[in-house]
Formats: sequence, structure tokens, C-alpha cells
Amino acid sequence: MSNNTGKVLESYPMNGGDGAYSYTKNSYLQRAATSITDAKIHEAITEKLDIGKLSSTSNTLRIADLGCSVGPNTFIAMQNVLEAMQHKYRTQDPSSKFPAFQVLYNDHASNDFNTLFASLPSERQYFAAGVPGSFYNRLFPKSSLHFVHSSYALQWLAKVPEEVLDKNSPAWNKGRIHYTNAAEDVGNAYAAQFAKDMGIFLDARAKELVAGGMMVLILPSIPDGIPNSRVPAGVMFDLLGSSLMDMAKEEIISESLVDSFNLPVYAASLKEMKDIIERNGCFSIEKIETTNPLSKIDIQLGTRPCTMHLRAGMEGIISKHFGNKIIDELFDRLDRKAEEYSYLLNASYTAGTQLFIVLTRK
Amino acid sequence: MSNNTGKVLESYPMNGGDGAYSYTKNSYLQRAATSITDAKIHEAITEKLDIGKLSSTSNTLRIADLGCSVGPNTFIAMQNVLEAMQHKYRTQDPSSKFPAFQVLYNDHASNDFNTLFASLPSERQYFAAGVPGSFYNRLFPKSSLHFVHSSYALQWLAKVPEEVLDKNSPAWNKGRIHYTNAAEDVGNAYAAQFAKDMGIFLDARAKELVAGGMMVLILPSIPDGIPNSRVPAGVMFDLLGSSLMDMAKEEIISESLVDSFNLPVYAASLKEMKDIIERNGCFSIEKIETTNPLSKIDIQLGTRPCTMHLRAGMEGIISKHFGNKIIDELFDRLDRKAEEYSYLLNASYTAGTQLFIVLTRK
Repeated sequence: MSNNTGKVLESYPMNGGDGAYSYTKNSYLQRAATSITDAKIHEAITEKLDIGKLSSTSNTLRIADLGCSVGPNTFIAMQNVLEAMQHKYRTQDPSSKFPAFQVLYNDHASNDFNTLFASLPSERQYFAAGVPGSFYNRLFPKSSLHFVHSSYALQWLAKVPEEVLDKNSPAWNKGRIHYTNAAEDVGNAYAAQFAKDMGIFLDARAKELVAGGMMVLILPSIPDGIPNSRVPAGVMFDLLGSSLMDMAKEEIISESLVDSFNLPVYAASLKEMKDIIERNGCFSIEKIETTNPLSKIDIQLGTRPCTMHLRAGMEGIISKHFGNKIIDELFDRLDRKAEEYSYLLNASYTAGTQLFIVLTRK
Repeated sequence: MSNNTGKVLESYPMNGGDGAYSYTKNSYLQRAATSITDAKIHEAITEKLDIGKLSSTSNTLRIADLGCSVGPNTFIAMQNVLEAMQHKYRTQDPSSKFPAFQVLYNDHASNDFNTLFASLPSERQYFAAGVPGSFYNRLFPKSSLHFVHSSYALQWLAKVPEEVLDKNSPAWNKGRIHYTNAAEDVGNAYAAQFAKDMGIFLDARAKELVAGGMMVLILPSIPDGIPNSRVPAGVMFDLLGSSLMDMAKEEIISESLVDSFNLPVYAASLKEMKDIIERNGCFSIEKIETTNPLSKIDIQLGTRPCTMHLRAGMEGIISKHFGNKIIDELFDRLDRKAEEYSYLLNASYTAGTQLFIVLTRK
């Protein structure tokens, strides 16, 4: 709306198309997360969603995927939600006809919607639409959604916290690109930004979801008491930062350019998220738990998948800041560094690094 | 839906991006049509739309633009519809708050939605969504739309009529790429395809529009008794066909490739459209009239705008059939031919070559 969409929020689209470095071909870590959570979502819908009540107020049930990227994960996730809702509907009311379903695919306007639309399942049993825009704004009309899903998107902050870019702040993040291994003030600035963004997210969704509507959020997290340097993503971010600093030392890029670059991604703990949701007050927490996004075995397959995965997700934001000429060299260096420091990855915690949350709108 | 979206319908996206040959930069003829019809749409909404009734059944009013292409015309048209609806709402019920508005931008999945989404007005007073798919299928849930707009899209048939590609049919269209100046059987095959497609279109929209909802259709037409060879579009299609035949004679392309190519576009007369709408029976005709899309003066500015306009709209479908290597040469030839035959363009009928139709859902 006029007072929201005008806000300039940064966007960092995943790599588009379907080439070797595309998100489509390099999002298997997210897909692994999807397959693990599919059953959990099915269970949540079966146990907690009063679909008969929802469909009595509307002849169309609307499902939104927020931060859908370009597929195929989003199609698999939406199909799973749809089937679970149909199953619940049939169980609750065997005699009646299915309502119509509409799936709303949301991501930033800079997301590759052309690829998304070209690969929509042709045999889908739902009406499909794309909704461009940041989910830190209002995206849908009031009380128009019945189910909201968001997987591996809410770790993206609306923007880099201002303090970490401010030379006069104790949170200035010189020589680093993330709060991993950084000063405590840097971590606090990130945490404050996350809490603010998540509050805005929950306010917007509270307006858009009907009473009784369900929201499932899946996002990377950090086990209580574990520093970010001890989880795989943290290790990789730190190695990416040190690869950039190496290039600065060799004068391939300027050091001040590295100083002014920070990854706007954050992993919250279960307690942090629970506090934020309770402070918002519009949702009942049906379930909040940490789960395991991937097993040790996946990491032991080698470090290359970690690099490729990071490249598919981060190439856009890095190119925007440093230009695209450094990309190949940067990720070659990261590849070698990840090999060299693979013991850090192997020793990192993977258990409990994913949050699975089921909320219903009060 | 499963039994509809599986159908393979041909699609011919307008040129994407914003380069020299893009639809964005070469759609001023359509824009001229928009500015002429803006006032007519405003009038239709003011006089015939019971917006109080519509908004009493839904807290969101949904407006769809079918065949929206990549902008900017669609944004201007949608803004005009929105303002007219807001004005009517305020007049009918000065004391109450505006309902929320959602604009649904529809075109084929192969349309350049990335460009469309990137150029959405940032200060818009509506929620926006993109809906990919052919409007000869169902696109929206039942009774979910309140206003439908479609400008310069319904002249595109769902496919080339089969008979014109059949060597054993009297409607085989050898040596031509359109029914302009062709045998009567060819014209009849095109007319039958148009009637069938328009029937499917009206059936789908009848399901999607609420009772009392309005549909405005703007499309090229042909004045009664005038052959297609005497209107500007017909002249240009014929010159395009003869440019292709010249290239076949010079063995740059094969003649059989020209024989198997036909433009799936059709201009209906007022009487034809009226009959089709009445046969469908779901809509009241509030207004149906021919208007003038552009003045003689526009054509007398030169033939180059006509060529550029044709290229922006037709390059996709031509490249798909002939490959993109011939495009520059083809349009250079067309440019020269249009110059040579400019007297045909100057002598063509422009008056009455546009249909303006206002329907309400019974």
C-alpha cells in the first residue's frame, strides 16, 4: 500500500535460470530441509487446522509461500500443504466438495519470476499467482490468507544493521562480513535488527491471515549457548570473509569495500523467536522446536556442495557490492579454504540448527 | 486447474526488457488506444457499476488485466480503473472507508513478468499480483473478480486454425501468413477459431466474475463491409508476408517454412462480437461500439513507427518459427516495403477499427 511499498528494502535474489550456479540446481540443502519438514507440516495441519471453519467463510482457500525463490522446492512444499489440507478436509467432512485453492508465490520483485512461472507444475490442482515484494511489508489484502509457509527466507534481514557500517560505533564490523567471530556489539546489532524485522513480519501476517489460519516458519537457528562460529553456515561465512580479506591484502579489491560489506543474515535461537512471537501476541504457538536440517554425512561428502550452495544464494548480493568480475576467483578461493578448514566444518554442530514453528492466528 | 492448465496453448510474448525493440518502448499505438478509452472506462464505471453492492460481499475488490504484457500501458490502465472505482465509491457512499484493492496482472507464463514486476509503480494504492497463463483457460477462483480489463489482447487466437496448415484443405494458406487478401475459406477458418476462442474466454470469465462485476474489452476490429486489406494492420501483415516470400524466392528461407507460418491474430466486426456475446448469454451488453484507435495524422508521421510496432509485437512468434537470424533483415525489408507502399497505408481505413465493449455479469 502507498505508505508501505514506497519503502526501499534491499533485495538479494537467488541466482536465476537453471545454469550450473543457479539456485534451482544448488538448493538441495533447502530441499533436504523440505523433505524432513513435509511430514511435520502434514501433522500440524491434521492436528491443528480447522479447515471446515476456514472454508465456511470463503469458497477459495489461499496458501502463500513467502520467499519462494525460483523452485522447485516451493512447488514441492506447496503440493505437500495442498494435499495435507485436502486430506484434512476429506477427513473432517467426507461428503462435501473440495473448496478451490489458490497458491500465492511471493518473493522480492527482483526474484526470477520468469523461471518460476515457466516451471509451474502443469497438472497443478490450484490457481497460481506471483506476488512480488518484501515480506517485511504488507503483501496481501486483510484476512485473505488461510495458510502461510516460509522456509529458509526469514534469516534474511530487511537490511544490514546501520551500526555495523558506522565507523564511530562500537559495532563497526571492520575486516569482517558477518557477526560470526565478531565483537559482541556486532552480534547485538544483528539481533536487534532481526527482532525488529520479525516484529514487522508478524504484524503484517496477523493482518493478512484469517482467524484460525496457520503459519509454518522454517529457518536456520542456533542451539542455545553455541557460538555462530560452531555451526556450518557460520564457518562458511567466516571463510568467505577471510577469502575477501585475502583478496584485499593482495590489492585485488579495496579493504574499505570489504569493511562496508556485511551479509544481512541471522540465525536466531529458539528462545529469541519465542520471545518475539509472544511479544507480538497475535498468534498461538502450536509448536516450536529445533530440528536437524542435515546430517554429518552430508558434510562429509565434501566441502564443494557447501561452496556451491553458498554461491547460489550469495552471488547476487556479493556481485552487487563488489562487481561480478571477482566472483569466480572468490569462490575458487573459498573452495580451497573450505578444503583446508574442513575440520572446522566436520567439527561443527548440525543438530538443532533449524527452527520449525507452527502458529495459528488467534 | 488440472483439466485446464495441462492444455498446451501457444504463446507469443511481446519483446521483453526495455531495449530499442522492446514492447515497453514500442507500444505507443496501444498507449494511444489507452488514452482514448480511459475516459470511456471512467464513464462506464460511473454509470453502470454498483460498487456499493460489490464491496458489501467482499472486503477486497479485485481488478484483473488480461494480456497485460510488460507495461507501462497496463499500469496506466489499472490506475485509471482504480481511480474511477474509488470515485464511484466515494460518490455512492461518502461516509465509508475505501475497500482494499488488488490488481491481478495476467499474461502467458512466457511474458516478461520480471520486467513487469520491476516497474510496478512504487506508490500504488493496491496489492499487486501476477497471474501466469492463457486467458483461454480458467485463471482465477470462482466469483473472485469484480472488474476485468483486456486491451489489445483478444485479437490473439489460442492457436492458428488447423485447416490453414492442412495441404488438403481448401483453407490451406499457401504463400501467405494471414487471411488478409487470402481465399475466403482462410478467412472463414480464422473467424471460426475466433468465435470458438471467444466462447471459451467468456465462459471462463463468467465463472470468475461476481454477479454485477464489470468487464471492459478493447480490441482491433474491422468496419462492416471493409476487407482486412484496407485497414493498417492488414496492410502491414500483407507486406510482412510478401517480405518473407521475397526472402523465400531468394532462397534465404524455405518457401515451405513460409507456407507453414500463419499469424494467429484476428480482427472481428462489431456484429460478430455481439453475436458471440449473446450466444454465451452470461453477460449484459452495457455498451458495444467501434471507435478510432489512431488518427490519419499518426500514420502520416511515417511508416517506421508501424514497422517498429509490428516488430515489438511479432518478433517473438517469427523468431520461434524462422529462427532469430533473419529478424533484422526481415524488418529492414519490411521497412523499405512499407515506404514503397505507404500509399496503401495512407489510403487505409482507421476509423472504426477498434471495438470498445462494456459487459456486466448477469
